[in-house]
Amino acid sequence: MAKNALRNFYSVIPAGGIGSRLWPLSRADAPKFLHDLTGSGSTLLRATWDRLAPLSGADRIMVVTGRAHRAAVEGQLPEITDHNVVLESEPRDSSAAIGLAAAILHQREPDVIMGSFAADHVIGDQRGFRRAVTEAVAAAEAGYIATIGITPTEPAIGFGYIRCDGALDIPGAPNAVLAESFVEKPDLEQARAYLDDGNYLWNAGMFIARASVLLDQLGRSRPELLASITELAEAWDTDRRGAAVDAIWPGLEKIAIDYTVAEPAAAAGRLAVIPGDFDWDDIGDFGAIAKLHSGGRKSDLAILGENARVLADTSSGVVISQTGRLISLIGVTDIVVVDTPDALLVTTSQNAQRVKAVVDALKLSGRTDVL
Amino acid sequence: MAKNALRNFYSVIPAGGIGSRLWPLSRADAPKFLHDLTGSGSTLLRATWDRLAPLSGADRIMVVTGRAHRAAVEGQLPEITDHNVVLESEPRDSSAAIGLAAAILHQREPDVIMGSFAADHVIGDQRGFRRAVTEAVAAAEAGYIATIGITPTEPAIGFGYIRCDGALDIPGAPNAVLAESFVEKPDLEQARAYLDDGNYLWNAGMFIARASVLLDQLGRSRPELLASITELAEAWDTDRRGAAVDAIWPGLEKIAIDYTVAEPAAAAGRLAVIPGDFDWDDIGDFGAIAKLHSGGRKSDLAILGENARVLADTSSGVVISQTGRLISLIGVTDIVVVDTPDALLVTTSQNAQRVKAVVDALKLSGRTDVL
Repeated sequence: MAKNALRNFYSVIPAGGIGSRLWPLSRADAPKFLHDLTGSGSTLLRATWDRLAPLSGADRIMVVTGRAHRAAVEGQLPEITDHNVVLESEPRDSSAAIGLAAAILHQREPDVIMGSFAADHVIGDQRGFRRAVTEAVAAAEAGYIATIGITPTEPAIGFGYIRCDGALDIPGAPNAVLAESFVEKPDLEQARAYLDDGNYLWNAGMFIARASVLLDQLGRSRPELLASITELAEAWDTDRRGAAVDAIWPGLEKIAIDYTVAEPAAAAGRLAVIPGDFDWDDIGDFGAIAKLHSGGRKSDLAILGENARVLADTSSGVVISQTGRLISLIGVTDIVVVDTPDALLVTTSQNAQRVKAVVDALKLSGRTDVL
Repeated sequence: MAKNALRNFYSVIPAGGIGSRLWPLSRADAPKFLHDLTGSGSTLLRATWDRLAPLSGADRIMVVTGRAHRAAVEGQLPEITDHNVVLESEPRDSSAAIGLAAAILHQREPDVIMGSFAADHVIGDQRGFRRAVTEAVAAAEAGYIATIGITPTEPAIGFGYIRCDGALDIPGAPNAVLAESFVEKPDLEQARAYLDDGNYLWNAGMFIARASVLLDQLGRSRPELLASITELAEAWDTDRRGAAVDAIWPGLEKIAIDYTVAEPAAAAGRLAVIPGDFDWDDIGDFGAIAKLHSGGRKSDLAILGENARVLADTSSGVVISQTGRLISLIGVTDIVVVDTPDALLVTTSQNAQRVKAVVDALKLSGRTDVL
């Protein structure tokens, strides 16, 4: 165990989603987590790994990803061992992905506390993050399923929220509160009300729990899914793994863990929330990238891309260049330009959420060559 | 002489300007006149030729162009003979280009009436154009330098204007009026006043005159320039042409024919204007292309490019695609996107005039690879 690592703690990184709202940057073969969207020089996946390594130890980080991304993931994480790579033969959503990781870890270490963290989020304040995870692990030790809820800084409409209830009294987790319920992405009016109310935190999709507790909760809402992943996990570290994956994985129900674990746990009073006062973003669209790079100011044009050549009188928005072509912007404010070898996107920060509609339209029309 | 061709008439097409406001479509090696901006399938140069052939005969159209464009011009005009190609070793502006054409034609045919028409303008109504040129040739026969002034349909700020005076009494030119003066591109308030006034026509840069009259007018304002081009013209159809070009051409004054011929002729009461009631555009910027394709409506997105793949919820503006890449536009109205292999422009119709500033900035910074 690495120095200062949390006892019994194991990190899990589900690296699955493509990030359709970041098309044409994010693609089936180049999903969001494989991009450096912060200009730090690290991909989001690598940055997530580096953030978790001090908490669990670098040898205790499991990545769940698609077979197609194996090489790219191992390229980003050269220190990862096969032991810590769980490959999906096809996407079955987060209940299956995180549930299987939990079941494998539980099989190996019955007392393990796992923390699941998306591969494609951005956190600036590493100390704040570590402090919150440490409290979350304490809550997990106390038997809760814990999540970290981010203190809102604005009435965001792109995130889901967690409505919090009274304080919990958990040793080592002085800030823990009980989750009352999860609420979907609100409209602006609702979001403002949530901000004023003060009891709503952003749902950052982080889940920390004993693997056994998480599996128990999953089994209450989806007993068949639990039975299947338990069977798969039992075969995992044996020579029956391949056959079990082929037989079981494609039949698993596709459903987000929010519905099978988080919401039922909240309803049952078993979900603890650690408020996180650190900066966090899921970079859900290009507007978020623009904001990230301008540091909240409205006056900076964010430019991403190693060989970007941009000539602009435009002082806001974001340009992502993958081609090295000269990009010239005249009189267009708050613009989003994503320049890739086979597809070009032009939109604005305000319309950035609508990028997914383009991806849907391309799918419908069969133009999948650029997806 | 072709059937129905005008007597003694010779067309001249100066094919020189790059069209900097249409960068990155127009380049030093692919100037505006070599592009199909109307979606007709013809380049502007070819369309100009086809418009003039019935007036002068196809064997009586002279093209003045840069050496670098010879192959492209001959590719567009396979029927042109060397006799009708005047190659500039370097650009010396329109007084030299049109003056040399006049001097060569005058050397060959002392009575020739020449008409000079830009290679990169668009005219839809061919009958209206022919009617106006026929009157202009009649005015030229009567000793005037004639121009065709376009009846304004809106308070355009992208064109120069001709202020007209009283009617002239010229046989065969019943609509001819005297030009009082030329006025530079106005601001919107001035342009509105011109439109209300009714005596202002758009300057379409068409000049029709006996070559001898045009040369005489040039000699009054620029005697040295006239002497030089006369010397060059005398050598033109001899084996001394090459040496004369090398010796004389680079030293010619660079000045637009507006200043050396048109304005002095107007001031001297020698400039006749034939009002042209046909549609005309010099397609000075991408806004003009958008307008041309929408037929004046604000609701159409113009798409140009053989292999254009555009997915847009945008209903106004223009997309020019040279790459075959998928271009996706979301929530951007009145947008201009020009997608070329090495340079991308994103602007709006309203800002289209400012494209030239980008070209100037690129020149200043030495990034001439994309010019």
